[in-house]
Amino acid sequence: MSSSNINDLKLRLREFAQARDWDQFHSPKNLTMALSAEVAEITEHFQWLTEEQSQNLPKENLAEVETELADTLIYLIRLADKLDIDLIAAANNKIEVNEQRYPVDKAKGSAKKYTELDR
Amino acid sequence: MSSSNINDLKLRLREFAQARDWDQFHSPKNLTMALSAEVAEITEHFQWLTEEQSQNLPKENLAEVETELADTLIYLIRLADKLDIDLIAAANNKIEVNEQRYPVDKAKGSAKKYTELDR
Amino acid sequence: MSSSNINDLKLRLREFAQARDWDQFHSPKNLTMALSAEVAEITEHFQWLTEEQSQNLPKENLAEVETELADTLIYLIRLADKLDIDLIAAANNKIEVNEQRYPVDKAKGSAKKYTELDR
Amino acid sequence: MSSSNINDLKLRLREFAQARDWDQFHSPKNLTMALSAEVAEITEHFQWLTEEQSQNLPKENLAEVETELADTLIYLIRLADKLDIDLIAAANNKIEVNEQRYPVDKAKGSAKKYTELDR
Repeated sequence: MSSSNINDLKLRLREFAQARDWDQFHSPKNLTMALSAEVAEITEHFQWLTEEQSQNLPKENLAEVETELADTLIYLIRLADKLDIDLIAAANNKIEVNEQRYPVDKAKGSAKKYTELDR
Repeated sequence: MSSSNINDLKLRLREFAQARDWDQFHSPKNLTMALSAEVAEITEHFQWLTEEQSQNLPKENLAEVETELADTLIYLIRLADKLDIDLIAAANNKIEVNEQRYPVDKAKGSAKKYTELDR
Repeated sequence: MSSSNINDLKLRLREFAQARDWDQFHSPKNLTMALSAEVAEITEHFQWLTEEQSQNLPKENLAEVETELADTLIYLIRLADKLDIDLIAAANNKIEVNEQRYPVDKAKGSAKKYTELDR
Repeated sequence: MSSSNINDLKLRLREFAQARDWDQFHSPKNLTMALSAEVAEITEHFQWLTEEQSQNLPKENLAEVETELADTLIYLIRLADKLDIDLIAAANNKIEVNEQRYPVDKAKGSAKKYTELDR
């Protein structure tokens, strides 16, 4: 029974943890560590590749990276749930902030942080 | 114009990057680094807190953590987009794997990795 | 032939990389990714433990953590070498900064960042 | 009064923490989080740079990276101290393991993990 969006996944993961009595381990502190360990598993795939190679992963490696991205999303959703944060709303809010911070005419083609952009 | 799900966010972020000519920076390798840096900003909030304190963040800190979670989701979506990975499908697949790896009767109340569970 | 300090280790690691023609992979960018992946392997050991449990690791786990700390130091030394940074001098300088930032009478018993300390 | 090696730094950092009553915060779990947050500050410097640019940092950025490397070493030393691990000995041991895992004739010019090397 697949979940079709973040909210469904949140509920499915909540049940998964409850059934296993895992909420005792899922403090925000611990989930943050787990999240960072999963991201590092993505990092391991790319650390010795050139940027171009990272865009053209062999099929087998891509399947592994897909699993690490899944793990990352899973822990991110669990963490947001424990903190009672709405991830989609938070992302929309942050994109609006970014639109202010990085106006097209100033930010175009630049990798500078907004604090260093000539405004 | 808020996005209401991951797919909408993906399209919104794609436009955001294209308008700023940022695709040149958004290799999977670079996006992975950015993702890991954002997760570390969550880590900074929790590193000196007890687990219990991490469950009861002061309102102001919680608002900051919310922004870091948003950044994490944003880079995760961008990375998945660049690798042509469907995040929701990948998460569903991984949860099914986890259901096999962690049967309730073996995993209940245990933080052991599946490779160390007595099966 | 063991190395007895960081400078010796630096030279030993330099030879190790040169013999294998690995300098082509050891850009500061790539070494930073490798460093972060190694630290995450330490994180994996501690993520579900309480703070108290983290102070009392079983012997076998401690041996594994020791290896991850070794890997972390190895990449840190390589990265510093590539950037021509003297790690020991840099650490001494930073400790002096910290002594200014965290005067004993203000910082005692507090986990606050120096920017939030009442001075 | 500068420390001239890792052991001296360990003692200096121990005193620093004791004077501030910070040992209560310095569990291995917490120090690992702090370590990972410091490494991420290095990551932030390199995430949008090409590998070549990472080798040619402007002087000002290099000074900042130096400080982040110092912080990384400081937390690594504190963590090793709390776990009673001898960092230099551990690194020597790991280099010997690596010499076995990556014999020059097999590993030359290859970024493959030892588990994937044709032996």
